[in-house]
Amino acid sequence: MYLEKILSPDDVKKLSRDELKLLAGEMREALIGKLSMHGGHCGPNLGFVEAAIALHYVFDSPADKIIYDVSHQSYSHKMLTGRNEAFLNPLKYDDVSGYTDPKESEHDFFNIGHTSTSISLASGLAKARDLKHERYNVIAVIGDGSLSGGEALEGLDFAASELNSNFIVIVNDNDMSIAENHGGLYTNLKKLRETRGNSECNLFKALGYEYRFVADGNDLNQVIETLKEVRNCAHPVVVHMVTQKGRGYAPAEKDREAWHWHEPFDIASGELKSRGNRESYDGILTDYLMKKAGSDEKVAVITAATPMVMGMDRAKREKLGNQFIDVGIAEEHAMAMSSGLAAGGAKPIFGVYSTFLQRTYDQIAQDVCINSNAVTVLVYLASVNGMNDVTHIGYYDIPMIANIPNLVYLAPTCREELVSMCDWAVEQNRYPVFIRVPVGGVESANRSISTDYSELNRYEVLSHGDTVAILGLGNFLKLGRETAALISSELNIEATLINPRYITGTDDELLENLKKEHRIVVTLEDGVLDGGFGEKIARFYGRSDIKVLNYGLKKEILDRYNADEVMRKNRLVPSLILEDVKKILG
Amino acid sequence: MYLEKILSPDDVKKLSRDELKLLAGEMREALIGKLSMHGGHCGPNLGFVEAAIALHYVFDSPADKIIYDVSHQSYSHKMLTGRNEAFLNPLKYDDVSGYTDPKESEHDFFNIGHTSTSISLASGLAKARDLKHERYNVIAVIGDGSLSGGEALEGLDFAASELNSNFIVIVNDNDMSIAENHGGLYTNLKKLRETRGNSECNLFKALGYEYRFVADGNDLNQVIETLKEVRNCAHPVVVHMVTQKGRGYAPAEKDREAWHWHEPFDIASGELKSRGNRESYDGILTDYLMKKAGSDEKVAVITAATPMVMGMDRAKREKLGNQFIDVGIAEEHAMAMSSGLAAGGAKPIFGVYSTFLQRTYDQIAQDVCINSNAVTVLVYLASVNGMNDVTHIGYYDIPMIANIPNLVYLAPTCREELVSMCDWAVEQNRYPVFIRVPVGGVESANRSISTDYSELNRYEVLSHGDTVAILGLGNFLKLGRETAALISSELNIEATLINPRYITGTDDELLENLKKEHRIVVTLEDGVLDGGFGEKIARFYGRSDIKVLNYGLKKEILDRYNADEVMRKNRLVPSLILEDVKKILG
Repeated sequence: MYLEKILSPDDVKKLSRDELKLLAGEMREALIGKLSMHGGHCGPNLGFVEAAIALHYVFDSPADKIIYDVSHQSYSHKMLTGRNEAFLNPLKYDDVSGYTDPKESEHDFFNIGHTSTSISLASGLAKARDLKHERYNVIAVIGDGSLSGGEALEGLDFAASELNSNFIVIVNDNDMSIAENHGGLYTNLKKLRETRGNSECNLFKALGYEYRFVADGNDLNQVIETLKEVRNCAHPVVVHMVTQKGRGYAPAEKDREAWHWHEPFDIASGELKSRGNRESYDGILTDYLMKKAGSDEKVAVITAATPMVMGMDRAKREKLGNQFIDVGIAEEHAMAMSSGLAAGGAKPIFGVYSTFLQRTYDQIAQDVCINSNAVTVLVYLASVNGMNDVTHIGYYDIPMIANIPNLVYLAPTCREELVSMCDWAVEQNRYPVFIRVPVGGVESANRSISTDYSELNRYEVLSHGDTVAILGLGNFLKLGRETAALISSELNIEATLINPRYITGTDDELLENLKKEHRIVVTLEDGVLDGGFGEKIARFYGRSDIKVLNYGLKKEILDRYNADEVMRKNRLVPSLILEDVKKILG
Repeated sequence: MYLEKILSPDDVKKLSRDELKLLAGEMREALIGKLSMHGGHCGPNLGFVEAAIALHYVFDSPADKIIYDVSHQSYSHKMLTGRNEAFLNPLKYDDVSGYTDPKESEHDFFNIGHTSTSISLASGLAKARDLKHERYNVIAVIGDGSLSGGEALEGLDFAASELNSNFIVIVNDNDMSIAENHGGLYTNLKKLRETRGNSECNLFKALGYEYRFVADGNDLNQVIETLKEVRNCAHPVVVHMVTQKGRGYAPAEKDREAWHWHEPFDIASGELKSRGNRESYDGILTDYLMKKAGSDEKVAVITAATPMVMGMDRAKREKLGNQFIDVGIAEEHAMAMSSGLAAGGAKPIFGVYSTFLQRTYDQIAQDVCINSNAVTVLVYLASVNGMNDVTHIGYYDIPMIANIPNLVYLAPTCREELVSMCDWAVEQNRYPVFIRVPVGGVESANRSISTDYSELNRYEVLSHGDTVAILGLGNFLKLGRETAALISSELNIEATLINPRYITGTDDELLENLKKEHRIVVTLEDGVLDGGFGEKIARFYGRSDIKVLNYGLKKEILDRYNADEVMRKNRLVPSLILEDVKKILG
């Protein structure tokens, strides 16, 4: 086996072309083996095996620097840079993350997980190299899907004319984003593929790049020869390389969208190893969206290249027709266009992962909120129980958006409230309304739920008690209920339990009233404490005798954490909260 | 006079071509008259007179909808849509803002002040129109400078292939951003100008647009004829129109950068009416940057199309040579590239207005902070005393960035501290450091200032007192000092005065110690209260007996406000703070 013996890129360079091809086969087998047990990004990695080999064969990493966009296609790169065991030995699978990470290897230059960043990051390296009078190759690898992101387009535009030195952009064109591509630039990529790179109408040439076309990016020799030609170039070059997403694993070649990222699967059949069938908040929203759009043709359901976040599979997208808008990887555009849709009298609903919402801060503040346009935004996986890669943490949303004027951010706590809040948001036309989609097991209301949220910042009191009041925001209402139960059994105090519902403001009247029969107010939020919900409550009571205990997550960089451990460390556990309450009650 | 009689676009349509030309002359005269007394965007408006007339001559606003990018070129549009008095009568100059505003007129569809948003907003209108089965023209007007922004590029890419219905993009090409353009797309615009639109290598055609070229966008007839051709088109069209920035006013034609935006001036000479010559924090930074870059070739000074924010006029830019990087309007790229520069061993310093920093939230969090790259960012006009147009408010920075992990946000309070903090930030390599450039009259230290800020979150005690402690952050240290003096004279209490220096964390040891001899902690911040600095202090003391009074700005939409009034309304006045303190002391 060749792969076992690859301890660094130097070992790649020693192999013959035929041996490299055998190596590619072994790598693909290792990929499929790990992915079948571990899950991960299938399509992007299977398609980039040969290119990763060619890059390490032609260039001298880490002196030459290869920057992977999203870096979800970097598994092969990892195998060739001293991390092969993490793909060969199941016990070591978790030794590496699914993205590049400088702490793992000197061959990784950035922690990258969001799309469309590689060209800008790489152009910084290239410029630093030039300022320091050093000489090496800088190579940015970017997929066609990521090209439509604003950061990538800004970088592509800049590097074309402003660097004037070695800079190589590899456009890994597999004719797919996560789902199918959307946007005009893809008509140009198609034209370039059809003309084998010969069309005069060429986006990259228009920007000023030298342009090379590789018709089969899964043909090692083609890739190697082209990379040799551009190595040590003294100006910006685009290598447009056509690869096959999912290459070498039939189910992934066939359904490229489903196999972009995949749970563990049975290799022979391609079937999921375990299929969850529990009711989920996401599924409730999918049903709501289909029904709503079906009954009102002014409803537009919007995604930025992640239709499955809202459960919008191909059949549902087709059913929604022109009421479903996938803008491609272009979150800024999605948010601003939503504002335009609302201004034009439509009812836009934009569903987005919390971590990718970060791309749209300015569009939220300027395009949406200053204009008070009634956009509905569904914010997914904003929770300590969301994605846990350092680049995909979703619980920084509250400080980011809840302090923007005019924005209403709602935190539903159960099935009925989620649907009621959504429907109110879509039907009203006064506020931009963001909804923090609950994470966790589906709860039911067991009480009547309001259908009108237009009187802002009215918290809901679930049980009236005394001495201790607990504000359990969104996902953590359940924790609040458990804490109240423990306080009741341990201290014989019936705590007041409150569902704040509104993240963006304080219910001053209610908070004022709490002063009469309470000594302690506890806030619980499934988000970072700094700049969050609880601090607003602490400020409100700053000049009073009420003691405020804020619970939430510490502001810190975490990567692939264990959520239960993080909860405990932050004392988000009924018994620890009880301890703190007891200390104050004396 | 024709202009006086233009009460709506209908009146434009009644004029003959010759009369329209006379109207253009009158409008230009009115523009120069108002700008000379009032200041404002000169170059963009002078260049767009004929196009604005042509748009209202050919299209039927407000049924047809014209969306102006940045909308700083919309003065002519305002003159033609019932707002001519605001340009003819000096007493009414302030009746309109410098940007489009739906509250002013049914011919304005959005409040717009940031660049690069028009295509996305307009495509939302177009899509809403289609969903509602309506028919009208949607026209996005965008300057060449704004095209390089990520949001614009995302929108341009999307609209090209995904709308399939009427959509007109007018590219107003005056061959300038605020300063000169930077980026590959400008080489293509140049080629298109040189070939009178005939080059096969055409960025817009590559994306899929039908393309029209107008060689002289200041020739009314040329513009009118082309717009007539594209009116009611059933697909996306780009009209590439060459106009002259500053057209018709010699000084503005000559120095297009200086006259992009201009203070009031003498019409005959073009000289400034009054020239401020006071020392400023901005000037201190300019000197620092020139000296620093001059002594260390690894220092890179970066701007996104606003070099003058750092005082980088043409002479200084030339002096810095390749150490000065203008990325054009591309804030995301500027931030990410800065991260790359730091990773490559250079010392990047990115200077940016607080309001435009909003474009880079995700790049700060992902590209910079997760990677702990030592980027220095100078944040300008983050203050109630900064720009006061609703689209340019700079005091929302603290909740936005100070709650991002790994980021160090410093608030200098005087000349010496500003320079010390900058120099520390540039020379260290552990943290991304943002510096909130002070706004207001320059203060001197009158004490020794630390040169090392690596021990994070250590507040500086300026005077030890008792009972009341005042934390005066950044610009508001002065207010803290005044408040302490008033408390001293009125209550005979010597308050403790603290310069927090660090916005991003609490000095727990110091705050703990304050408990001993203080009953009240006052926080003062020149920023919004929600998610800000003071709330962190309120949270810290939540479970103690200390009373916390947070002063700052209310979260609300303000437009062209009076800063003194806003300060008073938020009780940011020593006598009002004294009142509150007295209430608690009883």
